[in-house]
Amino acid sequence: MTKAVMSALIRPLVEPRLPDWVEPLWFMTKEQALEFAPEAEIGWFDLNEKEPMVEIAHAATNLKWLNSIYAGLDFMPLDVLQERGVTVTNGVGINALTIAEYVVMLMLAHAKGYREVVRAQDRQEWLLDSPGKRELAGERVLLLGLGAIGSLIKTRLEAFDMKVIPVRRSGGEGALRPGEWREKLGEFDWVILAVPSTDETRHMIGEIELAAMRPNAVLVNIARGDVVKQDDLVAALEAKTIEAALLDVTDPEPLPEDHPLWSLDNAQVTMHLSGRAQTKMFQRSADRFVENLERWHKGEAVQPQMDLAAGY
Amino acid sequence: MTKAVMSALIRPLVEPRLPDWVEPLWFMTKEQALEFAPEAEIGWFDLNEKEPMVEIAHAATNLKWLNSIYAGLDFMPLDVLQERGVTVTNGVGINALTIAEYVVMLMLAHAKGYREVVRAQDRQEWLLDSPGKRELAGERVLLLGLGAIGSLIKTRLEAFDMKVIPVRRSGGEGALRPGEWREKLGEFDWVILAVPSTDETRHMIGEIELAAMRPNAVLVNIARGDVVKQDDLVAALEAKTIEAALLDVTDPEPLPEDHPLWSLDNAQVTMHLSGRAQTKMFQRSADRFVENLERWHKGEAVQPQMDLAAGY
Repeated sequence: MTKAVMSALIRPLVEPRLPDWVEPLWFMTKEQALEFAPEAEIGWFDLNEKEPMVEIAHAATNLKWLNSIYAGLDFMPLDVLQERGVTVTNGVGINALTIAEYVVMLMLAHAKGYREVVRAQDRQEWLLDSPGKRELAGERVLLLGLGAIGSLIKTRLEAFDMKVIPVRRSGGEGALRPGEWREKLGEFDWVILAVPSTDETRHMIGEIELAAMRPNAVLVNIARGDVVKQDDLVAALEAKTIEAALLDVTDPEPLPEDHPLWSLDNAQVTMHLSGRAQTKMFQRSADRFVENLERWHKGEAVQPQMDLAAGY
Repeated sequence: MTKAVMSALIRPLVEPRLPDWVEPLWFMTKEQALEFAPEAEIGWFDLNEKEPMVEIAHAATNLKWLNSIYAGLDFMPLDVLQERGVTVTNGVGINALTIAEYVVMLMLAHAKGYREVVRAQDRQEWLLDSPGKRELAGERVLLLGLGAIGSLIKTRLEAFDMKVIPVRRSGGEGALRPGEWREKLGEFDWVILAVPSTDETRHMIGEIELAAMRPNAVLVNIARGDVVKQDDLVAALEAKTIEAALLDVTDPEPLPEDHPLWSLDNAQVTMHLSGRAQTKMFQRSADRFVENLERWHKGEAVQPQMDLAAGY
């Protein structure tokens, strides 16, 4: 029997489908989890707060496979896990579909000035002209990050007859490499950030990159807030050197009450809701875990595996 | 020489490209247009108001080809034009691209509860959960009307992994015929109205059709307001027997101040703006007209030609 220590939150979705070689240990509290942790060969330690998850991971000295619903596990002790030879499967892709839908919504809402239309209906005012007159068709998109989310964004935007140029390590047909996009920033109408949160991507967009963008450029961030230098972004939006920023993520989160992004007309703040606009997250995560149990038992590779050195 | 009587509004875009066999007569006012009208072989009589356009059309007794930027010309004396053997090219398709984009925006905005997010940002409130949790992916769409607009909607929604079933006269693979969709209304999550405005489509959605829809059904109308019986729709929205209505068009327009659709939470009113959310309408219409002049001169068919008996 293989001992699996798992959060009771996921129990209703996983328990009915557990194979008989798994001995489940369900925990309700952090204390229970810490008690079970040293026995765990398989662990699913998700809690609503990060600190206890880190503690439990440290205590799981016999862990071989750690699973999580979260896509961003950079807060976990990845060096320790790597040293112990732990395989980590994260939630990459669980939210991808709904985030991709959210991105297209934000872009269309900006293009058509839809927020003004919402406010006009609230005032019961019949507008005579559209507050926004952009069409997605024919515009050029720089897509930084071609993972699960980026790939889904790409196919959706291409259906709108947009020209999407992705950036990825390996380059490839129609793609730019990480060293090539900065000098071409002025060629794009939209810049979408869908990169993982790592040391390399932290602050990758700042004053220089913003200055290189076109006056009609729209920056879309659904990666992490700290991919963009917030002060530089606020300055560019205030000076209107770019047209707008559509920000599902900000730095910090939540955005403090007096933060200028709240009230800038050309900033949309959507409170890290993009991945939450769905009802299927837990189901998808449980389905994937159960499939992975099968693979684990056969000695096959579980998916998607994190690169612990790279941090995503 | 062929005399063409045209609105001065379109002059800057057309005049530089007029072929030499055309003798243009540009009018600024209704009076000028009425004076020129009897000489016109080709006419482009567009004005901001309908009544003078009707008058000018009556006066154009030698007209062979009437062109317009408008898609809906049902207000024109089509019977008279038909009797006189006039060919009519309308603006069908000129707005199609931007209307198709608008429809996807409205659907996504509804799915994610985006209006609540806009209002939250206006209040500077950081929401902790998404007000809407629907995904387009996997949902089923009944698309009434597969003209220029409907076809563009279809390809865009299919990129979101939606299942789109169109209704068209000729049927065809994956499509329903006009007599078949009513009994299947309960199978769809979204019902999109993209039909032309004719006697046949007037009031095609009323109490019976609304009652046959699913509780989660969303009605999207970008056709004409009178395709839907407004009172029946208001009743269904008030009783919440369907989830929502996304209405670019209403009956009447503008919506009167005290109309219940303004304040119903499950109704979005976008004031017939969908086709106006672009800057290219006049350019597209002028391009098409100049191409048609070439065809006209060669004796080829100009496009798109209205079926004057059918009214679209």
